[in-house]
Amino acid sequence: MSRLAIWGVQGIGEVTPQDHLGKIIADACRQEPNGPLQDNDVLVVTQKIVSKAEGRLVPIDANDPLSHKQLVEQEAVRIVRRRGDLIITETKHGFVCANSGIDLSNIERGYAALLPLDSDKSARRIRDFIRATLGVSVGVIVSDTFGRPWRQGLTDVAIGIAGIAGVVDLRGTPDSLGRIMQVTEVAVADELASAAELVMGKTSGVPVAVIRGVEEAWFRDSSISELVRPPQEDLFR
Amino acid sequence: MSRLAIWGVQGIGEVTPQDHLGKIIADACRQEPNGPLQDNDVLVVTQKIVSKAEGRLVPIDANDPLSHKQLVEQEAVRIVRRRGDLIITETKHGFVCANSGIDLSNIERGYAALLPLDSDKSARRIRDFIRATLGVSVGVIVSDTFGRPWRQGLTDVAIGIAGIAGVVDLRGTPDSLGRIMQVTEVAVADELASAAELVMGKTSGVPVAVIRGVEEAWFRDSSISELVRPPQEDLFR
Repeated sequence: MSRLAIWGVQGIGEVTPQDHLGKIIADACRQEPNGPLQDNDVLVVTQKIVSKAEGRLVPIDANDPLSHKQLVEQEAVRIVRRRGDLIITETKHGFVCANSGIDLSNIERGYAALLPLDSDKSARRIRDFIRATLGVSVGVIVSDTFGRPWRQGLTDVAIGIAGIAGVVDLRGTPDSLGRIMQVTEVAVADELASAAELVMGKTSGVPVAVIRGVEEAWFRDSSISELVRPPQEDLFR
Repeated sequence: MSRLAIWGVQGIGEVTPQDHLGKIIADACRQEPNGPLQDNDVLVVTQKIVSKAEGRLVPIDANDPLSHKQLVEQEAVRIVRRRGDLIITETKHGFVCANSGIDLSNIERGYAALLPLDSDKSARRIRDFIRATLGVSVGVIVSDTFGRPWRQGLTDVAIGIAGIAGVVDLRGTPDSLGRIMQVTEVAVADELASAAELVMGKTSGVPVAVIRGVEEAWFRDSSISELVRPPQEDLFR
């Protein structure tokens, strides 16, 4: 029976556009007190350091709220809802979230961090580098912190994945009474991102976590499109 | 630095309305190969066995889809969206979910399981019984599997909590650059429910999981109302 272990990777400092993120993560993992990475570990990496390493920082006028707002609209393909200062948008990637995923925390004043252009590619680059240098095959999830309708509080979700399933389809699997189940597609990449958030905190400067013990069958080629509901199937846009 | 361990509790069989759920869980935990429960462990218990133990099974006509549909409407205080067979409702508890949280999997044919009347009370009863019999203070989360707008796949969320925070408020905490952060209220109970789902599966008959290593500061009196967004603040109802 599966048993998960989850820990934050220590020793990753501030990340800049000059940095090679895969190398930073590989080096930090090599020195982990929890031991070296293993095949079928999942690495969860926060969007913030991916955006920083990929140079997705843009200058804004920190004294002018309009500067942030213009950027939010520029990064949106659609405004989904607006109330007061809150703007819920759909991004080019198909994510629906506050402020087009742009926020200003843990960023130098006068700058904003945009979402990575292609977070699957960001995840794949890290995965490939880890395999090339450490010789292990891991799943990689780029995570971000989104709000939800109807429920208070934010949770971390996946915005890019490589080598690990987005959604696992349990449709048609017999339930424990031997009957065929109704639809049960589990968003395992989002659940893994949420689980990792529990050891990262928001202020502790731990932007990478390792999850060990994940179901072997979930490791496969994947794309974040598994997790993006097509607009025509969505009842809330 | 925190390190989480998560495992499914073995040896919990079918649960019936004659069963004392707290006792079943306490007995199963006593025999766990992972060792006895400790203070500040979190127990995540799926709604299905809570509903069964509390006798929330009602007969339906398994050959008549209308029978299920009538029950869904009866359990709703409001229909939020409807398309084809899909009904998104708001329940008496304030949850917005498909089919008023009623589903038919892992239930004897001819019956449906309603949500517990008061899942906080269900969680509290288990927590109190564990403390009285095993002498340890744990957090308890009753979890259920809900869909979300905009994203494919289901995730487990909390529908009842006791002794563990629903939402942890990190507003006003300085970020790693020493600046005051924007709003960051993290829905830790939902993230813990999602993390537990990863070891439960849907078909493996493991309805209870233990999470060890959770941040001490999150253990406190709590209520699921922390996680229910008031309708007047919600942009999607």
